[in-house]
Amino acid sequence: MAGEETLVFWLGSAGFGIATVIFASIGLKKQTAGINAELFVSFITSISYVVMALGLAIVIAPNGDPIYWSRWLFYIGSCSILTTDVALLKGESSRKIAEIGLYTGLTMLAGFLASYVTTPEKWWFFGLSSIAYIAMLFELNRGELAKKASMPKILAFVTLTWSLFPVVWVLSPTGFGVINIFVEAILYGVLDLVTKIIFGLYLIFKVK
Amino acid sequence: MAGEETLVFWLGSAGFGIATVIFASIGLKKQTAGINAELFVSFITSISYVVMALGLAIVIAPNGDPIYWSRWLFYIGSCSILTTDVALLKGESSRKIAEIGLYTGLTMLAGFLASYVTTPEKWWFFGLSSIAYIAMLFELNRGELAKKASMPKILAFVTLTWSLFPVVWVLSPTGFGVINIFVEAILYGVLDLVTKIIFGLYLIFKVK
Amino acid sequence: MAGEETLVFWLGSAGFGIATVIFASIGLKKQTAGINAELFVSFITSISYVVMALGLAIVIAPNGDPIYWSRWLFYIGSCSILTTDVALLKGESSRKIAEIGLYTGLTMLAGFLASYVTTPEKWWFFGLSSIAYIAMLFELNRGELAKKASMPKILAFVTLTWSLFPVVWVLSPTGFGVINIFVEAILYGVLDLVTKIIFGLYLIFKVK
Repeated sequence: MAGEETLVFWLGSAGFGIATVIFASIGLKKQTAGINAELFVSFITSISYVVMALGLAIVIAPNGDPIYWSRWLFYIGSCSILTTDVALLKGESSRKIAEIGLYTGLTMLAGFLASYVTTPEKWWFFGLSSIAYIAMLFELNRGELAKKASMPKILAFVTLTWSLFPVVWVLSPTGFGVINIFVEAILYGVLDLVTKIIFGLYLIFKVK
Repeated sequence: MAGEETLVFWLGSAGFGIATVIFASIGLKKQTAGINAELFVSFITSISYVVMALGLAIVIAPNGDPIYWSRWLFYIGSCSILTTDVALLKGESSRKIAEIGLYTGLTMLAGFLASYVTTPEKWWFFGLSSIAYIAMLFELNRGELAKKASMPKILAFVTLTWSLFPVVWVLSPTGFGVINIFVEAILYGVLDLVTKIIFGLYLIFKVK
Repeated sequence: MAGEETLVFWLGSAGFGIATVIFASIGLKKQTAGINAELFVSFITSISYVVMALGLAIVIAPNGDPIYWSRWLFYIGSCSILTTDVALLKGESSRKIAEIGLYTGLTMLAGFLASYVTTPEKWWFFGLSSIAYIAMLFELNRGELAKKASMPKILAFVTLTWSLFPVVWVLSPTGFGVINIFVEAILYGVLDLVTKIIFGLYLIFKVK
């Protein structure tokens, strides 16, 4: 059932495993405000990739490709940690941080439902997920930006790179099936690498 | 498998979708303490109703009617937001707010188990859910009420209307099956409307 | 499918049910910092034992014994409450408390995956769970201990007794199957009793 995408998932497991160790060792030397978000994001992602590599949580798309729906359940945890960390850096109130975290969690929960359902009714959940995602971006981008000089750049980066995830989703077997599961796995893998590891290293060394 | 209750669920999806938009636009104009609880409650409920409308998460009751157990999993999120919001309005300590949220979540988790199990053993979970629910009501109602003049009325309203949910549960195919799934869906729909939309509008315009 | 371990689970349900009542009545008389952690830990555990007693969430191990994987999902809630409570008592920052809670939750999530998967690939998740567990112990034990005179004793107790859980896991049908499910259920039951009820009573009467 599982094909050559399995290799991508093992590479992802290894990459995020190494990233976890790196962020843990940085965390021992450098104390920042808030939790060591980068460490937890990488650790949760490495568990997620092992689950996919073992093919444990799959439904079959209309084109016969497997859909790894567990990815989106793990994103509920990892992506909420990421966005609340950015909101904290931006100096938002705890009220706004909680709202941004909730919108992120609901984006990924509806994204899970959209992936799990393989009939055209999936688009209901894609729509609900998109609404929560746009609300999250709106809350994250509006308001004062004064606190950190690099904040506009960070927000533009998050807005741009995160918005490529639903593009991949639409093109993949989860959406219209223009690309196959192997290409999908590579694209998500690169996006995960950029938005979680490279972004995390940038935050730690240039911003925090 | 799914019958005419599906129409009720689509109506619920639409109603809570509209309520989400209304609470979102109010939230842009009026800032309140805490998160925009009404918005998140309505949005989570609209996702819950789409899941039920599509018949995605069902077990079959002894009388042959479908039981939509996902309702209770979504209540874990939406109802915890609601009760912690009321506790915050009441001026409770963060310790008490956390306890009230935990009791609410456990009420709905055990309620899910009671709905998912269709044998008489379900009553174990109905009992556990009831204990958590009574503990929640006890914590919410005891102690100082001074902060808001309208608080006694709010607490009486919550205590009364929320307590109709287990009554519907007992009469429904989940319990003794005195009423059928169509009537159940209408009764829960009216209760959801009253406790989540009308109550939310009251809180925003008269209390907050 | 379920055997004589069912009796152990019913005993556990009853024991933790009684413990819940005891901790609730203590909580009415004695106010402590933080939530009534002991009460919620016991209540969640009693629900968990009823789920196991009813045999609701089972996979079959290679030796034919049932594996009750829901235990680990309930530990996500109960054990996170326990470790964050100990971290709060120790006087840790909210940042550290959140990290300790997250590590605990990830330990139990990966522990659930390790239990749910019955092929040798389960050891991936056992490894990931162990890493999260060691990180949790490391965070909990390092740093200042000054706040309470009994803290070194408490931390040694937690470190020692909690570390027996993975030992039981490895010996059980979940691991190498050296002991059977009946012995496993008794050992976990005794460990739950010691780490959740007796430890809770000690904290309330001697420390808090």
